[in-house]
Amino acid sequence: MTIRKICLGLLLLFAAQHGYAQELTAQQDRVKLTFALDNNGTPQYAVYLGTQAIVKPSELGFVLQEDSTFYRGFTVTGHETKAVDERWKPVWGEVNSIRNQYQELTVHLQQGQRLLNIVFRVFADGVGFRYEFPEQPLLNYFVVKEERTAFRLTGDHTAFWIPGDYDTNEYEYTTSKLSAINNRDIVASSTAIAVRVAPDEQAVQTPLMLKTGDGLYINIHEAALVNYSAMQLHVNRENYTLTSSLVPDPVGNLAYLHTPCTTPWRTILVSDKAADILSSKTILNLNEPSAIAQTDWIKPMKYVGVWWEMQTGKSTWSYAEDARHHTPSGKHGATTDNVKRYIDFAAANHIPGVLVEGWNTGWEDWFGNWKENVFDYVTPYPDFDVKGLQAYAAGKGVQLIMHNETSGAATDYERQLDTAYRFMKQFGYPAVKTGYVGKIIPRGEHHDGQWMVNHYQRVTTKAAEYQVMMDTHEPMRPTGLHRTWPNWMASEAGRGNEYNAFANGNKPEHETILPFTRLIGGPMDYTPGIFKLSGYNAADTSKRVHTTLAKQLALYVTLYSPLQMAADFPENYARYPDAFQFIRDVPVDWDDTRILAAEPGDYISIARKEKGSDSWYLGAITDENSRTLETSLSFLDAGKRYLVTLYGDAANADWYGNPEAYTIRTFIADYKTTLQLRLASGGGAALSIVPATPEQLKKVKPYRR
Amino acid sequence: MTIRKICLGLLLLFAAQHGYAQELTAQQDRVKLTFALDNNGTPQYAVYLGTQAIVKPSELGFVLQEDSTFYRGFTVTGHETKAVDERWKPVWGEVNSIRNQYQELTVHLQQGQRLLNIVFRVFADGVGFRYEFPEQPLLNYFVVKEERTAFRLTGDHTAFWIPGDYDTNEYEYTTSKLSAINNRDIVASSTAIAVRVAPDEQAVQTPLMLKTGDGLYINIHEAALVNYSAMQLHVNRENYTLTSSLVPDPVGNLAYLHTPCTTPWRTILVSDKAADILSSKTILNLNEPSAIAQTDWIKPMKYVGVWWEMQTGKSTWSYAEDARHHTPSGKHGATTDNVKRYIDFAAANHIPGVLVEGWNTGWEDWFGNWKENVFDYVTPYPDFDVKGLQAYAAGKGVQLIMHNETSGAATDYERQLDTAYRFMKQFGYPAVKTGYVGKIIPRGEHHDGQWMVNHYQRVTTKAAEYQVMMDTHEPMRPTGLHRTWPNWMASEAGRGNEYNAFANGNKPEHETILPFTRLIGGPMDYTPGIFKLSGYNAADTSKRVHTTLAKQLALYVTLYSPLQMAADFPENYARYPDAFQFIRDVPVDWDDTRILAAEPGDYISIARKEKGSDSWYLGAITDENSRTLETSLSFLDAGKRYLVTLYGDAANADWYGNPEAYTIRTFIADYKTTLQLRLASGGGAALSIVPATPEQLKKVKPYRR
Repeated sequence: MTIRKICLGLLLLFAAQHGYAQELTAQQDRVKLTFALDNNGTPQYAVYLGTQAIVKPSELGFVLQEDSTFYRGFTVTGHETKAVDERWKPVWGEVNSIRNQYQELTVHLQQGQRLLNIVFRVFADGVGFRYEFPEQPLLNYFVVKEERTAFRLTGDHTAFWIPGDYDTNEYEYTTSKLSAINNRDIVASSTAIAVRVAPDEQAVQTPLMLKTGDGLYINIHEAALVNYSAMQLHVNRENYTLTSSLVPDPVGNLAYLHTPCTTPWRTILVSDKAADILSSKTILNLNEPSAIAQTDWIKPMKYVGVWWEMQTGKSTWSYAEDARHHTPSGKHGATTDNVKRYIDFAAANHIPGVLVEGWNTGWEDWFGNWKENVFDYVTPYPDFDVKGLQAYAAGKGVQLIMHNETSGAATDYERQLDTAYRFMKQFGYPAVKTGYVGKIIPRGEHHDGQWMVNHYQRVTTKAAEYQVMMDTHEPMRPTGLHRTWPNWMASEAGRGNEYNAFANGNKPEHETILPFTRLIGGPMDYTPGIFKLSGYNAADTSKRVHTTLAKQLALYVTLYSPLQMAADFPENYARYPDAFQFIRDVPVDWDDTRILAAEPGDYISIARKEKGSDSWYLGAITDENSRTLETSLSFLDAGKRYLVTLYGDAANADWYGNPEAYTIRTFIADYKTTLQLRLASGGGAALSIVPATPEQLKKVKPYRR
Repeated sequence: MTIRKICLGLLLLFAAQHGYAQELTAQQDRVKLTFALDNNGTPQYAVYLGTQAIVKPSELGFVLQEDSTFYRGFTVTGHETKAVDERWKPVWGEVNSIRNQYQELTVHLQQGQRLLNIVFRVFADGVGFRYEFPEQPLLNYFVVKEERTAFRLTGDHTAFWIPGDYDTNEYEYTTSKLSAINNRDIVASSTAIAVRVAPDEQAVQTPLMLKTGDGLYINIHEAALVNYSAMQLHVNRENYTLTSSLVPDPVGNLAYLHTPCTTPWRTILVSDKAADILSSKTILNLNEPSAIAQTDWIKPMKYVGVWWEMQTGKSTWSYAEDARHHTPSGKHGATTDNVKRYIDFAAANHIPGVLVEGWNTGWEDWFGNWKENVFDYVTPYPDFDVKGLQAYAAGKGVQLIMHNETSGAATDYERQLDTAYRFMKQFGYPAVKTGYVGKIIPRGEHHDGQWMVNHYQRVTTKAAEYQVMMDTHEPMRPTGLHRTWPNWMASEAGRGNEYNAFANGNKPEHETILPFTRLIGGPMDYTPGIFKLSGYNAADTSKRVHTTLAKQLALYVTLYSPLQMAADFPENYARYPDAFQFIRDVPVDWDDTRILAAEPGDYISIARKEKGSDSWYLGAITDENSRTLETSLSFLDAGKRYLVTLYGDAANADWYGNPEAYTIRTFIADYKTTLQLRLASGGGAALSIVPATPEQLKKVKPYRR
């Protein structure tokens, strides 16, 4: 035996005892993932874009109730790689076909007698990885006390963040360096948010949007949040390391699991183009295919509703003055007559849905009492005629959208789920908007904890069983589960337009941030479309929307959702029927989407192709800075010429002083056209781009700058 | 104006400012209640028996989230007294007619602008009082942080106690002075009890039985535990003051209330006769009348069951070896054939019910994992034929009793309540035994907290809606609610006979204590009737029942329940058919009850008159001391002569060495007869006393000592 062989033998022996000394890698295009164990046997991963480090070697692992050091002392017992390149079609979406291409690396780890797998998928625009706990003798039912997933960032990046709050996402965004992140003041001052629980001053919510000093865009989130607690990030302001921070249950545990099981995917998107973050399909690609076989009842839709009038104080959800008296206050919003008005309006404008909030008993006493037995989900107020309105709506080709506000009493809602959904089917409600305003019951649970994650899944499954579409308000933020449950159309889980009604509102930059953050995981029911942008709250005339009217139109394109509300009152739309035409026309389901221009916090411009049509719709929005976006229409079909209707800010418009000033221009354009979209401060532009008829080609002039 | 008038005026002024200076009193027979405010405006009550203080002036009040000093600074704004003397008939019970006679004193209190009423009811055998929070502007929804109800006892009484545990009542009783109470060791050593949570070493459970040095008997408990947390008692060993200690929720609150509302009644029974404690109807009298209008479906019953064989390890609840494998282990108890055996036995012996545990999927993985989704309550194992067994039983005049073990996952049970109870109705189950073995989900809640109190009420209401009788295992201990919900037949909520099967068992004195403690609030499903008193646990031959066979028979009389199990195997009853005759004969519903002799921890002798019959049944039991009870039959009708069948310990019987030795004697007796009932160590005597036929009078001899 030679010395060489002896050395090789020793080396192999060393390797066998200490795991793989070498690094494992996987790469897709410019994105590279590396995995290795450090000297303590702690698993670590790193992410590169080309040669540039995006995430430095960062720890992985857990503290389990059954094993407090399940983050070190590992060895690698094996690994596999796999290449996948497939296509799939979503039931609805921003595009009609999605490519799923990745390199997969699975690492098999062992610590003592316990097993852990980590699966990495490397995409052209980022990385996703998840932990898998295989069936094994020494881990059966177990409890996660801590997840130790780190994201060691390479510098003091700019972050667009909201606090890591166990119960809400409804904060305004703060833009700051990582080194400046502290959420205490914003948590304390956000008094318009009902329930705020943010014990860690250094915690931020995901999706977290980042921009490096080098101009790289990074987004951290999770995909497929199933049977687990939601992940926030604890920020180390000194070394720019983020660490997973899960939402606890009442006794301080994070998750109760049973092997074999997996965690959600932790996702890191990266690109040198902001637009790539918006167009990424990685979150969806990491989710499971649709669990619903027959989906013809799932239909994206626009809707109006008896809602804004309550948000602005014009009417009330409740019927009586208060819970002690039963005489009507005269201020009830959801009366048969009022609902008929909305039905008439919807029918006249080919809007298929009318949401009605406050139709059911319980509202006199519903908020802030942390109690069950608020709503029974089936008993209407005396002035709301369930059957009559169903017939009236049906006669006009309109459907009512159900509202089930739970006031946070999830146990109470679960007791009544069959009753509530049976009622919906009986009276022809195709969709339900649910709400969870208030502290959660089971008491001590949080909106974002594992129990509530499972609650929302139970409700989604029940809704699917009853063939009802769902729009969830106040849940944890989405993580792409609408691929698996395409009846889960949209969520709120963020600061929506309503904050303009009853609170200080949303800064002009707000809607230029949301697609980079909240919407990364799924559609948001933002409820845009306000035409009377100020003076709608009689009790407080300072309440206003912080955009121009043209930007309100553009939001139907830039804030993607298969459920879109035209939130204002019919009479306000009646003031500007020409502007309202855009809302009538804009679709809610798409064959294709192009991110034309985007910078988080500054501007967004998106074009989308209507499903089954050659028409395109374009929306461009800006923050408080007016700007002109040079917009090429090169995405249009080369062989066609289009009638463009451009709804834009008037020259003297601005969100603060003159928000309702808009102009409408029509012109002919084609794929060679480049537009100069002039956006006012807090402004926007909305364009319908429809193949022109011969007559239009004759009558309407081509675009001129 | 005279000096006298000035003084009177000043006095009145003083009284007006400081509340009533004088004491308020109410009295019923020898029991007197006094109420007054102390110098701090703290409400206080005291209880006397004749001139003897039972409870010294003791504080009342609360710490509320909304008012941290809602226990002082009160004034009395008014008071009323009322005398009530009425009769009512229970649907089932120990007697068929109950007198409700009391003096009621209502005290109206005010602190600042908040209102509180305290209602006292004084009975001939004790006092009950409760707090009432009237509707008022400054208290609407509120949270109880502490209840400060004191019971200042007058001396170092002997107490028969179990630890104040948030999740279980299944401890052995300790008999000690108040000054010696500390529960730490017994909590730590009671390892056979699955879930034990007793943070306060000085806490004891109610009903608490006490005996003073003067020979007075005192019992402290509560009545009508509705929408509130269960009350334990913190013991001050130095001054013998007990203080109410409620079970907290996950965030440390005790109860969430909404005015107008009331607390449960705090009850203090007192007599110089131990028998009066057992015969007291005060707890029932303090409960609301039946909420169920039509009660013909509610029928007290005896039952056998596929149960003891699993408790003793002879068979298993589960079907397969474990959750990972699906092949049958061959040890499954609830098979169609085995159940038929029990049905045959029940039919042959005119026993209407057969309980079957382990009939449904989920048992391979059910215990100790603190998870939901264990049972679906409707899916049988492959070897349990639901429909076939229903038909088989019906054909023999027998009904199956359903088993719904929840493993503590109350939220999961609530989701499936309609499904579970619909299944019961569909397949002819007249009754259900529910179980809550394990830590509660909602996590952080306790078996005895307000949320679970409300859970059990929800289940009871649902069961009543489906006309199903309920036997609850592992709930909070009862408080007389079976008056309001007569379908709630029995509970376990205590250390039952099963502890002899799998644990160290129950000392011979155990059953002489239970009626003074656990059963004060309601019937206990103790599951007696074991004939093979040792050697039934193949894995541990030391496991044994700590009584004689004759005492097992007597328990059917001394441990009152409208649901009584004959718990042993048919083959063990077949060994002693003559003894089993008593179980065949003994009724479960009564027109009258006489406590013939009783001393807590020593002996109990009770006679009960069968409902709608002239027959009586008598049971006498003793602790580890053999004794002879001189027993007068003067309760019998003067004009009748009776055939008495006396099932007693053989002369050489004792629970330890010779438990199965019994004798059966028959003789004629009448109201002038006095029996000498010789009870062995751990022994008893059971008697059926039936009007004699002329032929029996000819053939059977009269009683001779």
